Amino acid sequence: MKYKLTLSFDGSAFSGWQVQNNAPTVQAELTRCVRIILGDTATVTGSSRTDSGVHALGFVCHIESEKSLPESSLLSALNHNLDTHIAVLDCVKAPDSFHARYSAVSKEYHYIIHNSEIHDPFLNSRVWHYPYPLDAVKMNESAAELLGEHRFTSFMAAGSKIVDTTRCVYKSEVIRDGKSLVFSVCANGFLYNMVRIMTGTLVDVCRGRLDVGVADIIKAEDRAAAGVTAPASGLYLYRVNY
Amino acid sequence: MKYKLTLSFDGSAFSGWQVQNNAPTVQAELTRCVRIILGDTATVTGSSRTDSGVHALGFVCHIESEKSLPESSLLSALNHNLDTHIAVLDCVKAPDSFHARYSAVSKEYHYIIHNSEIHDPFLNSRVWHYPYPLDAVKMNESAAELLGEHRFTSFMAAGSKIVDTTRCVYKSEVIRDGKSLVFSVCANGFLYNMVRIMTGTLVDVCRGRLDVGVADIIKAEDRAAAGVTAPASGLYLYRVNY
Repeated sequence: MKYKLTLSFDGSAFSGWQVQNNAPTVQAELTRCVRIILGDTATVTGSSRTDSGVHALGFVCHIESEKSLPESSLLSALNHNLDTHIAVLDCVKAPDSFHARYSAVSKEYHYIIHNSEIHDPFLNSRVWHYPYPLDAVKMNESAAELLGEHRFTSFMAAGSKIVDTTRCVYKSEVIRDGKSLVFSVCANGFLYNMVRIMTGTLVDVCRGRLDVGVADIIKAEDRAAAGVTAPASGLYLYRVNY
Repeated sequence: MKYKLTLSFDGSAFSGWQVQNNAPTVQAELTRCVRIILGDTATVTGSSRTDSGVHALGFVCHIESEKSLPESSLLSALNHNLDTHIAVLDCVKAPDSFHARYSAVSKEYHYIIHNSEIHDPFLNSRVWHYPYPLDAVKMNESAAELLGEHRFTSFMAAGSKIVDTTRCVYKSEVIRDGKSLVFSVCANGFLYNMVRIMTGTLVDVCRGRLDVGVADIIKAEDRAAAGVTAPASGLYLYRVNY
């Protein structure tokens, strides 16, 4: 039996999604609970790795198991057993052909900057606290330059071994919501640290800390041309589209 | 020199406001920073004790010190040094006659219930997660019965040694904001655990778990007549009025 799960998790409690030795991960915790409920041979496969400290509002994974349970019972049983830093928001049976990673056609991330002189104690590990003024309109204009198909080499962590850096960005916008700036970006795939480097670059361009604009940074195909890597704490996997 | 400070803090990181041996408290952390900036004889006095795990959006305290600094410099220096679970929102010089505790005329608390079948990983230690349906309109009607001057003995933790339990409640209302129920209560003073017992009682009355209504529970002047003590995690000191 195959199930598709949608999860929310507070990434500050985990060393990312993927199982590791000697570090708490979302996959390890979920697998532990799935096996209590569906037996020792059940497996959990995620739509993507996420870095340590990165959050999710709509992470998708699939379960494969010999045992089967009604969807609502599995959802309740998982939420009853899971560490409260994870919640299963949805659980549906999926066809054999479904694969959380390979069936995904696009993903949307949100990056939240808390743009206020004074930090907010309730947003520790939840945002990037940026105390200097940022112009959301200007950042939104720069964000639009990321749209479309490009080689995003400049926005990939140095040392990454991916050869084909071409990705297609379907949505890229910055809006202000009170003291929060939210950068929403949807693409058919993401390179390592891509959203965090995009965010840092939008901030650096907005603050006049880079000599060129986003379009030129894309053209440079060089990580050194882009801005800082924004911290993991502000990044949320918002949705996976199938 | 006297300063009036307004603070926000995430109470889940502290064993309450008041200095204790061998436990992190807000007063201890603030005193540590105040003394770095204003010298070893500076003292910090709070408007109230808060319990372990209780949060604040507008806690007030005063500083007394021999040294003096411009208000904005003191605010910045404190925020720069403090544990990020605390933020100083406001800092103003205060007259000698001002006392954070004795000058207060009323306080307002908010209690947040996350009323949803599925818990929210981002609200761990920030709310009371209550998975069964609650009727905010009905709770608001019950909350109105708390208004006015009463002996609130039924709403005081058993074993408390306070003799005069008369308090005057100026505001008492419940509103729904999406999946959140917010109980706002303002009074000229609060007994030990008063807001948490009020909250638990409103929930228990709403759920039909008590035989009588709030007015009768007040009349009983007996802790046993009231409902459960809601957890500390949902309680926020919202404002202190002078």
